[in-house]
Amino acid sequence: MSQPVDLVINARWIIPVEPAGVTLNHHAVAVRSGRIVGILPQNDARTRYDARRTINLPDHVLIPGLVNLHAHCAMTLMRGIADDLPLMRWLQEAIWPAESRHVSSSFVREGTLLAIAEMLRGGITTCNEMYFHPDAAAEAFDLLGMRGIIGLTVLEFPTPYASDADDYLRKGLAARDAWRDHPLIGFSLAPHAPYTVSDANLARIASLAAELDVRVHMHIHETAQEVADSVAQHGVRPLARLAGLNLLGDHFIGVHGVHLNESDIEILHRHGCSIAHCPTSNMKLASGIAPVAPLLASDIRVGLGTDGAASNNRLDLFQEMRHASLLAKVSTLDATVVPAHSALRMATLDGAKALGLDARIGSIEVGKEADLCAVAFDSLETRPCFDPASHLVHVAGREHVSHVWVAGEIRVDKGNAVLQLNDTELLGFAGLWQTKFSN
Amino acid sequence: MSQPVDLVINARWIIPVEPAGVTLNHHAVAVRSGRIVGILPQNDARTRYDARRTINLPDHVLIPGLVNLHAHCAMTLMRGIADDLPLMRWLQEAIWPAESRHVSSSFVREGTLLAIAEMLRGGITTCNEMYFHPDAAAEAFDLLGMRGIIGLTVLEFPTPYASDADDYLRKGLAARDAWRDHPLIGFSLAPHAPYTVSDANLARIASLAAELDVRVHMHIHETAQEVADSVAQHGVRPLARLAGLNLLGDHFIGVHGVHLNESDIEILHRHGCSIAHCPTSNMKLASGIAPVAPLLASDIRVGLGTDGAASNNRLDLFQEMRHASLLAKVSTLDATVVPAHSALRMATLDGAKALGLDARIGSIEVGKEADLCAVAFDSLETRPCFDPASHLVHVAGREHVSHVWVAGEIRVDKGNAVLQLNDTELLGFAGLWQTKFSN
Repeated sequence: MSQPVDLVINARWIIPVEPAGVTLNHHAVAVRSGRIVGILPQNDARTRYDARRTINLPDHVLIPGLVNLHAHCAMTLMRGIADDLPLMRWLQEAIWPAESRHVSSSFVREGTLLAIAEMLRGGITTCNEMYFHPDAAAEAFDLLGMRGIIGLTVLEFPTPYASDADDYLRKGLAARDAWRDHPLIGFSLAPHAPYTVSDANLARIASLAAELDVRVHMHIHETAQEVADSVAQHGVRPLARLAGLNLLGDHFIGVHGVHLNESDIEILHRHGCSIAHCPTSNMKLASGIAPVAPLLASDIRVGLGTDGAASNNRLDLFQEMRHASLLAKVSTLDATVVPAHSALRMATLDGAKALGLDARIGSIEVGKEADLCAVAFDSLETRPCFDPASHLVHVAGREHVSHVWVAGEIRVDKGNAVLQLNDTELLGFAGLWQTKFSN
Repeated sequence: MSQPVDLVINARWIIPVEPAGVTLNHHAVAVRSGRIVGILPQNDARTRYDARRTINLPDHVLIPGLVNLHAHCAMTLMRGIADDLPLMRWLQEAIWPAESRHVSSSFVREGTLLAIAEMLRGGITTCNEMYFHPDAAAEAFDLLGMRGIIGLTVLEFPTPYASDADDYLRKGLAARDAWRDHPLIGFSLAPHAPYTVSDANLARIASLAAELDVRVHMHIHETAQEVADSVAQHGVRPLARLAGLNLLGDHFIGVHGVHLNESDIEILHRHGCSIAHCPTSNMKLASGIAPVAPLLASDIRVGLGTDGAASNNRLDLFQEMRHASLLAKVSTLDATVVPAHSALRMATLDGAKALGLDARIGSIEVGKEADLCAVAFDSLETRPCFDPASHLVHVAGREHVSHVWVAGEIRVDKGNAVLQLNDTELLGFAGLWQTKFSN
């Protein structure tokens, strides 16, 4: 007797990510109540399930929804506002002044909506977010139905959002209380960087993270200058300082990790930390090349992040997969490192593990929530196709994403519709804020 | 009294490339008999011209058609056939065996058609091509109306195409004779690489190039091994050897140029040579990072190439512009090098200069042929837009190309139609050859 399910997706290929390196041919995924209940040959699926809806993807590869392990969503409204500057000048001369004039709750809500629409259309179903006004960001994730882990940013200095570390934490924790138990939304503590938060507040955040059982999301070792300054000021490199303050652990997600020596890598390994690798941002800001091959060789989890659209300038994990693979190859002069399946794993399951969400998402496995992304290999640019994993990393672009589901709910269909909000409204937000920044 | 013209294009922005660094707002380009006859404010264009056709591009940037300075078009049929291998293993274990089984006139014709369709849809209007069966390649460029400079490949060893250097040259020159005076098609001499052609034949090619007044198109200094082998075998680095054989000059296009020391750069400068920089291929094959910033600082012309789709795996100059800018920044740790306007110039006018075609194409100037590309910034992913040049390099993808003209003839309209041949036919070629390679 056939079992009732909500959805059966028949795909030419399925790359489940777990088990590693596998590509299934002519298989189906069955979904009931938002969860994956079966992965099996299409012929078997036809007899086993009575599906409320069936979607046939004859030229497509189905992969887990992508996990963006580092973003500043609202900065989408500053896409490309200042290029060709190194990190500190870019922050001090362009970004921080613009933010001090314009950041508000509505800026964050509207910018995050635009970012989510861009990410969903590009196959990203989960975002590890860090910015101001976490309540406004949560509203956007809720409205568009995307999974978000929203960082409660902490800085020592005042911004239009908060006055000092106490104020950032108080406002952040209030937002967390207001959005507790939302099925798609979680929170992390997000001290901005070692050079913008004091020892006292980092130690306090360490205790709070343990108490609340949340992730810590923090920029680290992005530039050589940051490391040199820490040695001058604190006598140790940033990671050693953070270790001394009890901030590290398997709940710690260090963003960038460009300038890491052997002892830094040993610290990351010992504490079970994760790295959010943002190759495009690191290249564009000339920060350097993260040592991804040595990190992977030391069994350190490496996920992929887009960073914000003012430093990248696209929220596109297909690009980040490609750049992670290409940069690792050219920087080691070894063409075999970070092969396609590894890059895809970084962009999915390893990001989910870094977030502590791997029991729920990150791979196509029975029992997990159905966060899924279909990529169409039916255009000239994608033919011929000898290996769909290679195509995902080296051929496809996010423009080939055809369908996206979050927890079994369809969020993108044929690249056209982001549900709940139409393109015209979103383009309106972009235009409005562009005018404000340009005045 | 208004002047009759064939076409007026009204664009939100025009980046003419020459003069450098300029972005025109709300200007129009007028075209008559395939040539640009006016560039002026839209209001003036309305009164000055009586246009047979007017195209309004209210959210678009109009740029010169892109010049792909290095490709192996037919290899599109081997897209992604072997990844994660270093250059010599990739050639010896995957590519050369596949080629020896399958390369034929119809392989080249059909693969080149597929490549041209991909390139035109991505805004590329000129391709500096190097492969076998130049007659079959010329047929494809003629059929789809794209500009091609077809390399007459020379190797010492036999392939299904030819038996020895004499045979390659004889067949190549016959193809050139057959296609002389075609308005869009030209030829170059293409000795494959220093390590695959003898001194005697390189000297002969040098004389022939002078006699025929054609470009020389050659892979050089791609890997460290190639340079070391040359020193061991010839006592000098490859460029010094080529200089001694009189092969260098402003007609010489050296492809890759990854491993160049100061004396190599001095040789390139002294002889006025051009470099075809292929950043994606160099990363994927782990060849290394070409010293683009030092080359530009030495006033050496650097154009951009995609290389073949078996080593890249997309014929996408938007990607190459982005990678040229990002790699130059990260490899010098200087975020100011290769800004957006420079990357666009490399992909257009500098490529045209390398080919000796800059009097005819490469920029939007009155008197030049109308090779044009329009890019739409009307989707979520491209908003807001503070600087269209930045957007071309760091935000847009080839999927945003909306219209392409070659010598005033429309070749792509809304990314949908490649004229003269439909998608189904082209997909048919790709499928057919995939089956052959897989058997």
